[in-house]
Order: sequence, then C-alpha cells, then structure tokens
Amino acid sequence: MRFEIKVLGSSSAMPTKTRNLSAQVLNINEKFFLIDCGEGTQIHLKRFGVKFTRINHIFISHLHGDHFFGLIGLLATLQLLGRQKEMQIFCPDELEPIIRNQLEASNTFISYPLVFIPLEEGVKDLILDKKDLQVYSFPLRHRIPTWGFLFTEKEQKRKLKKDFVARHNIPINQFENIKEGADFTDENGVLYENRIMTKAPPKSRSFAYCSDTKYSPGIIDYFKGVDVLYHEATFAEDKIKEARDKFHSTARQAAEIAKGAEAGKLLIGHFSARYENVSVLLREAQAVFPNTIAVEDGEAYGIE
Amino acid sequence: MRFEIKVLGSSSAMPTKTRNLSAQVLNINEKFFLIDCGEGTQIHLKRFGVKFTRINHIFISHLHGDHFFGLIGLLATLQLLGRQKEMQIFCPDELEPIIRNQLEASNTFISYPLVFIPLEEGVKDLILDKKDLQVYSFPLRHRIPTWGFLFTEKEQKRKLKKDFVARHNIPINQFENIKEGADFTDENGVLYENRIMTKAPPKSRSFAYCSDTKYSPGIIDYFKGVDVLYHEATFAEDKIKEARDKFHSTARQAAEIAKGAEAGKLLIGHFSARYENVSVLLREAQAVFPNTIAVEDGEAYGIE
Repeated sequence: MRFEIKVLGSSSAMPTKTRNLSAQVLNINEKFFLIDCGEGTQIHLKRFGVKFTRINHIFISHLHGDHFFGLIGLLATLQLLGRQKEMQIFCPDELEPIIRNQLEASNTFISYPLVFIPLEEGVKDLILDKKDLQVYSFPLRHRIPTWGFLFTEKEQKRKLKKDFVARHNIPINQFENIKEGADFTDENGVLYENRIMTKAPPKSRSFAYCSDTKYSPGIIDYFKGVDVLYHEATFAEDKIKEARDKFHSTARQAAEIAKGAEAGKLLIGHFSARYENVSVLLREAQAVFPNTIAVEDGEAYGIE
Repeated sequence: MRFEIKVLGSSSAMPTKTRNLSAQVLNINEKFFLIDCGEGTQIHLKRFGVKFTRINHIFISHLHGDHFFGLIGLLATLQLLGRQKEMQIFCPDELEPIIRNQLEASNTFISYPLVFIPLEEGVKDLILDKKDLQVYSFPLRHRIPTWGFLFTEKEQKRKLKKDFVARHNIPINQFENIKEGADFTDENGVLYENRIMTKAPPKSRSFAYCSDTKYSPGIIDYFKGVDVLYHEATFAEDKIKEARDKFHSTARQAAEIAKGAEAGKLLIGHFSARYENVSVLLREAQAVFPNTIAVEDGEAYGIE
C-alpha cells in the first residue's frame, strides 16, 4: 500500500536549471493529491510520469504566483484530455474568480465539474473525509493568508487470521465485530480472544505540508507525531534576518519544527534560487534533526 | 550579424514529452524578441540558454491559453531578477487587464515600466520602428482575433571601402553622403564614382510568424518574399476537415502559403499532440514546398 510524496518542484519564487516551482503529488494507494501548482506543473507531471487523470483533488496553499500559476494550464489540459470527473480544489477563496476570469479571457470552456472549496482562516479544519483518509488544513504564518495541509490515513480495522477462523469455523456474520476488536464465544461456550483471531492492521501513516511560512512553533500542535513533514527551508542560517523579513524559514528552523513535532522524517525544500548546491541547508537542518532529506525534483519519498 | 529564430515550444494546445507550448525567440544582432509565451516559457528560456534580460519586446498572437499563460510568471520573475528597463508587450487589448488583475491577485508588484501596446484588427500595421528593424502585425484567421508578425531588417547604407577612401584621402565629412550613394569629386576635379568607394550592404533579412490560422491565401501579401516563414501545421492532410473546423492549417496548406509567398524557407510547428513523430507532416509539406523544416524545441534556425 503506497504512501509516497513525489516532488515536482522545489525552488522558491522562480525556477532554476534544476528546480521547478512548487508542486508535489501525494500518492496514497494510487489516489493522487496535488499540492500546490506552480507554473509548468502539467509539464512536470508528464515528465515525472504521474497520471493526470488520477488527480481528483488539488490543494493550493496560498496565492503567491509560484504556487498557483500552473493551475489554469493544468485545468485547460484536463479539458482537452476529455476529463468528465469532478475536480475539487481546496484553496483561498479569492482563487475561484481568478481562475474563472482567466478561463473566460482565454476562451477556455471547462465541461467537467470544477468545485472550489474555500479554506477557513485561523483554525485546523477537516476539509476532506474519505473512507480511508482525512485531510486537514491549518494556518501558517506568511505575508498573506497561507495554509498547511495534513494528510492522515484512518486507522484500519484489525485483520482476521484467515486460516485460524476457517479452521475453527468462526461464523462469517461475526467477522465485522471481530475486526472491530470483539472476542467470540461459540455454541459450546469456548471463548476465542480477539488477539488470537486477528492481527494488528498496518500502522496508519501521515504527511504534513508546510510552505510558505516563517518560523512558527505554534503550528507544531497541528501535526504532532506526523510520519513525514515537508517544511520550507528557503534560506540558510546566515540569512535568518532575511527569512524573518520575508516570512520564510531557515533550514535549521524547519528542523526545529520537525523536532518539536516528533516527526518521523523531515523533507526540506522551497530553496532560494541562490543555492545551486543545498548541502549547507541540509547540514544545518541535520544538526538539529538528523533524519532530514533535501528534496530533489522528480524524486519520490515514501513511507513504508 | 545574427538573425536566428530559436523555438522554445512547438506543441499545440497542450505540452507533450518532447514539445512545449508555443514560444519563440527571434535574435536579431543580440536583440531578443519573444513571440508568444505559453506556460513554462521562463523555464524553457533558461533551459535553452536565452538571456532573459535581453528581451525588451514581447508579441502575443492571440488569447488562447497555450500562447500566453506563461507571460505572468515571466513578468514576475523579471521583477525578482531586478529588472528596471521598460518591457513592451504587443498584444490583443484584452490582455492588459488580465495581466494586471493577476498581478494584483498574486500579490506581485512590478516596478519596471510595463507597457501594453494593443494590436489593430484587420490591417497590416507597423507596430515597432527601430533604427535597423521594423515589425508589422497583420490579421490571421482563427476562432478569435489573432495576429501574425513580420520582422524586417531595414536596408542598410552602403559600406565604405576603408582602404580605398584612406588611400585617396576622401574627406571624412563626405562619408555619410557616400554611404547614401553619392559620388565624390575632389579639389582637382577627379570624380570618384560611388561604386568604387563602396560595396553593397548585407541583404536585409525578414521573418514572418503565422500561428494560429486556418488556411488563408489572403495573408500571403502581408509577407511576400519573406526569407523565413513560420506557419502553423497543426494537422496532417487526412485531418483537413478537423483543421478547417478548428481554424487551423494542415502541413500541406502551410506549404501552399510559403509557395505563394515565395518564401526562402518554411518552418512548420504547432503540431497536434497526437503526432509523436511529425515526419508525415514534414513529407506532406515538402511535397509542395521542398525547403521546409519541421521545428524542434530548443533548436535555432538562422538566416545567413
């Protein structure tokens, strides 16, 4: 069961020769969630082999151009590809008129249902509740209203030990109760404890996305214990003043957030275009939180 | 003296694995003119080694998204790069409010002068008149108002034969007259004919850009005798009905236009994404106009 973050773009503000503008695809069991959509995202989806048609949900963190200028082109291309299925876009509420105006101005008619779901300011909010997954938005601290996103798998039921239940003729109509954790007593009064009929389900996994934001320990509670945290790391520590002034974070600050959240793993990205080599950022982050990875475009980062 | 068309994108409507959305850079003696600006143009400028800062004029043929969705990102990046020089954008008049609204919506402040020059409908129009170059717009026939562009070098003055004029002590104050074609008679009454003091200047060169348009022989007069013609060739001949219905051209039709215009060379592009291999299009065009090239992204096509 896959749970994998594919990075399409990890440059801040402008593209470089090796890094595109912000976009990531979270693949949870072959369901694809697009997070941010900088210019060129449709090109990079194709280049990195992500099937467009599997994306049914898009999350836009904020309305700086490097995080959403690729949305209009992607929506237009999906139309050309014959999409009929609804597309849900979770975003700041000003985005819908921007996109609708552009569609009109560019003579683009979208015939599939396009649903914009505005994000709530100032609170952690359950924005998507699926059979096996929940998605929350939460506030970051940037120059304009900006949101992070937390994706958490729902806890699965316990798994039946199939051989055991067959061998002991446990009745099928009891299976759901047993998966929920119940014991079972048969007609002869024999008690079967749950733990001998079932095994624990796979651990549910979680991913939090934080870009763009200044250093803000107040956000840690929104994703405490997360398995993988992506946190922007625009600057190295010698630019800490610039980071603060521009409402961005340093790599060390990203690591402090990961440490405070007791995250399993930290992915850093959204690097300033000045860093052709990001090893200084990685080193500064790892000094605080060793299990840090500096992401590369086109790479996928999974949770086992 | 360079006169070279670099193709940044040659796919129609949507990008493919090998072809980007429409954009070209015309390099005339290291002055760069950007023609159309599909999504990702700033990325492809960088990838193909074109210096952003040399671009002072942008030409947008029409307001279908695949020809202008990259403009907003390019303008924003120029701002980040510290541009101060004016940028002139020749475009349909509806483009200015679209861009201004997007700049506002994306919190992007442009501090360099940004000048939009609306194109005139229905006529051939001199839109840019520089010391050594003129640019004309002219109407194409597409679903929405669409323009072609013609770039022509001005005829240069004759070149002095430097050794000759030095040897015969031709006075410097006569040089401009002589370059204009005048003869010269010295104080002893000796006549120097112009042709022995000068040589012919390099031939002035021209390039016409026609995308998007249905087959329309009426446009030929706008660029008769052009050195290089770029003409869209969205479809092969078996899709001629689709071409007509969508106001596009087939490769053969592009060749007919080149032949009628007595062009020196034809470049075809704007290929439908269905053609992974464009050899059928090239073959059909060459049957009518042998000196045809099917363009490739990143390649430059020069005029000697």
